[in-house]
Amino acid sequence: MADFLAAHTGLDPEDWAATRALGHRMLDDMIDWLADARARPVWRRMPDGKRAELRAPLPQDGVGLEAIYADFQRLVLPYGAANEHPRMMGWVNGGGNAAGILAELLTAVFNPNCAGRDHAGIEMERQVVAWAAEMVGMPAETSGVLLAGSSMANMVAVLVARRAALGAEVRTGGVGGVRLVAYASAAAHGCVPRALDMAGIGSDALRLVPADAAHRMEVGALRAAVAADQAAGLRPFLVVGTAGTVDCGAIDDLAGVAEVARAAGLWFHVDGAFGATAALSARYRPLLAGIERADSLAFDFHKWMQVPYDAGCVLVRDPAMHLATFAQDLAYLTYAERGMAGNPPWPRDLGPDLSREFRALKVWMTLLAYGADGLGRVVEHGCKVARHLAARVAREPALELLAPVTLNIVCFRVVALSDAANRELVADLQEAGIAAPSTTVIGGRLAIRAALFNHRTTEADADALVDGVLQLAAQRAVLR
Amino acid sequence: MADFLAAHTGLDPEDWAATRALGHRMLDDMIDWLADARARPVWRRMPDGKRAELRAPLPQDGVGLEAIYADFQRLVLPYGAANEHPRMMGWVNGGGNAAGILAELLTAVFNPNCAGRDHAGIEMERQVVAWAAEMVGMPAETSGVLLAGSSMANMVAVLVARRAALGAEVRTGGVGGVRLVAYASAAAHGCVPRALDMAGIGSDALRLVPADAAHRMEVGALRAAVAADQAAGLRPFLVVGTAGTVDCGAIDDLAGVAEVARAAGLWFHVDGAFGATAALSARYRPLLAGIERADSLAFDFHKWMQVPYDAGCVLVRDPAMHLATFAQDLAYLTYAERGMAGNPPWPRDLGPDLSREFRALKVWMTLLAYGADGLGRVVEHGCKVARHLAARVAREPALELLAPVTLNIVCFRVVALSDAANRELVADLQEAGIAAPSTTVIGGRLAIRAALFNHRTTEADADALVDGVLQLAAQRAVLR
Repeated sequence: MADFLAAHTGLDPEDWAATRALGHRMLDDMIDWLADARARPVWRRMPDGKRAELRAPLPQDGVGLEAIYADFQRLVLPYGAANEHPRMMGWVNGGGNAAGILAELLTAVFNPNCAGRDHAGIEMERQVVAWAAEMVGMPAETSGVLLAGSSMANMVAVLVARRAALGAEVRTGGVGGVRLVAYASAAAHGCVPRALDMAGIGSDALRLVPADAAHRMEVGALRAAVAADQAAGLRPFLVVGTAGTVDCGAIDDLAGVAEVARAAGLWFHVDGAFGATAALSARYRPLLAGIERADSLAFDFHKWMQVPYDAGCVLVRDPAMHLATFAQDLAYLTYAERGMAGNPPWPRDLGPDLSREFRALKVWMTLLAYGADGLGRVVEHGCKVARHLAARVAREPALELLAPVTLNIVCFRVVALSDAANRELVADLQEAGIAAPSTTVIGGRLAIRAALFNHRTTEADADALVDGVLQLAAQRAVLR
Repeated sequence: MADFLAAHTGLDPEDWAATRALGHRMLDDMIDWLADARARPVWRRMPDGKRAELRAPLPQDGVGLEAIYADFQRLVLPYGAANEHPRMMGWVNGGGNAAGILAELLTAVFNPNCAGRDHAGIEMERQVVAWAAEMVGMPAETSGVLLAGSSMANMVAVLVARRAALGAEVRTGGVGGVRLVAYASAAAHGCVPRALDMAGIGSDALRLVPADAAHRMEVGALRAAVAADQAAGLRPFLVVGTAGTVDCGAIDDLAGVAEVARAAGLWFHVDGAFGATAALSARYRPLLAGIERADSLAFDFHKWMQVPYDAGCVLVRDPAMHLATFAQDLAYLTYAERGMAGNPPWPRDLGPDLSREFRALKVWMTLLAYGADGLGRVVEHGCKVARHLAARVAREPALELLAPVTLNIVCFRVVALSDAANRELVADLQEAGIAAPSTTVIGGRLAIRAALFNHRTTEADADALVDGVLQLAAQRAVLR
């Protein structure tokens, strides 16, 4: 071994001591930063001068890690996306967690490519997929793969449904002139039409079925639309049920949707990006009844389950169809009976990626650290804060609730302000660092949208949002 | 603030001391593990008993992080994918690096969703994309986005080329009956036909243009194929040049391919998964001449540039066309003039993902820590080890070189053994922990394929591979 040990170390330091010491300092700093989140403004705009400082030509020579870290602390860390902050309430963002953070440290060093081969990373991804199936009541033999997020997970599901409808020929011959039709609620997420766009079917192939006052797809209207399209000679192939609409968290009647899909012979996919996580709570699980009948399900671990970004998942009930959608025969990437190329099937045959980070570890450690019950309590806590916020909004004459609160999303507006002014008010709140809701449009009105996903958020944080809204709205009224 | 400070901490520990201590222990352990890589067998198969131990029902209650880490050390860490190991020579895998590891620690805590919004993560991704364009000589205004890897990067490029060919209607109306045709070398990677499959065009739409003895696409054959298809009323739209074939690292005549594409009005895409990185070396950069004319380029930071998994990149010369391929107008995800929803365009309008890890930090820190020159030396080192290995193979009468060595990939076989026995021999090497080459097929013969991507690999490691091959081949001959 002497020859080897005397050899060059590549990019590795000859002595790890300095790197090790810096790593320990970073770890302490970052835990302090996380623990202090509440004391910071929720968001600060990155100053133009610091943006300019970040811009530089491709560096030719290396610089020391200490200097790089100093730049990170100065230029990057203060101007983040706020996901760690208890008063981050915009869009749909998980807050991260300590077990997931430590997992990412291990993952960065362990550093497998989880495209395939015979190693523990693949075994662990299978375990995590099995847990996901168990969480929603799908069969133990359900197939699945981890992806960046639900946008790609929905895309994979569309591709499997396309393969199921058109057979193996679609992979070689393309979609051609077949007029496929898919169905989803008018409240479905934009990644569903975009998946149809990317898959060559076209977003116009998606029928947006009307939603009722509770933002749930009208099952009768779905049934009628499918029947009309079949009668017109079109080729219905896919129904997407939504478990948690992005606007307000409504959950379609999944059992009813499943029944329509079964009767018409269509693929039943569920987009449960965040809503599927409600299955972790005994209280909210009944809202998802029917999800266990899904042919495929898309959801994220990095939203309500608080796993660090990114960790999405698609589940497919029929493992053979899943494999038939992606598997390829490539000379440089064959399976072997033994050695490192064993242990099929590999994730590369279950999705579009051939280079894949070891996402499973952060999911595994998060689920083990808190348990399904612990994460279920996070779900219930978010819903409780949402109910508190909705009740407060209802009590405030200046405010108006715009949508029913099914889970953890509250949409409201300042009655006296225009849509444009309500939108400005949200930017006011963010720039003041008070709270960070986002906006959407509900029934044609601009909504201030508070999504209670961060596990650190309290009822007091919800009150701080309302207090801030009222105070800044009053300032706007005075300034007018 | 008293109310806030008294509030619950969600999943966070009330006192971070124990988590902090465990994090420090993990960091030390993992640096030791990395520094000791050379002393380990390159790979050990995970025993069936440990696979069984990993399998468990969805945990209901949480367990302590110490116990979880103990399971990781016992069940996972010894049975990895070997990317850190100097004698990992299979497939195409980067070895990771210290700056990237520390970046992932920071990223896990900082934890932004890099789909968009106005924060430093977005600014840094733009900087990294600009560096990538500078690396290959594409214009400063080149658009780009980070992705899991080149499979998705090639898919994005196919979608942009499809949009350029068929106009905005393809997004809403689908591919329909248009008979698009694409071109690539017969030695191109399988993700190219798969991208056409996923995009609804079908993999049969890819003409595999013959490659010459050096595994480079025959430019004359390409020109003739395009002309024949145009004459036949088909719709050529895309030419894919390969910068680094997966089998043996050949680089197409990119300038010649670019010329054919320009003359025929086709989109010129380059799949430079690992080969584009050769641009970091003044010695090897000339082999890529013409890459700077690409309409789009796919490549990975996690291969030869040693960034931890995963970090792929697609560059698109025409920013408007890139945006036109993916941008959507969604009520819950609009841009704002100010506040957190400012600073367009966002990466979510440049690719398929809406949840995206902060991949840019590990790329930024790796490039700053070693510089383009330092990473260029890694390229030259890998090529040097490959030349050493090829020379050794040429000197050994028992061995036969199967392909020219352009960069860092060496394909050879044991002359006296059948294809099946050469394949078994590779599994023998892996199971013995000596070295981990992979296999491919060159000219109909099974090749032992050594790809020298790990920055730690030395000429002595290459010799250890050959010694192992000869020794185990002799054992096989005796056993026969």
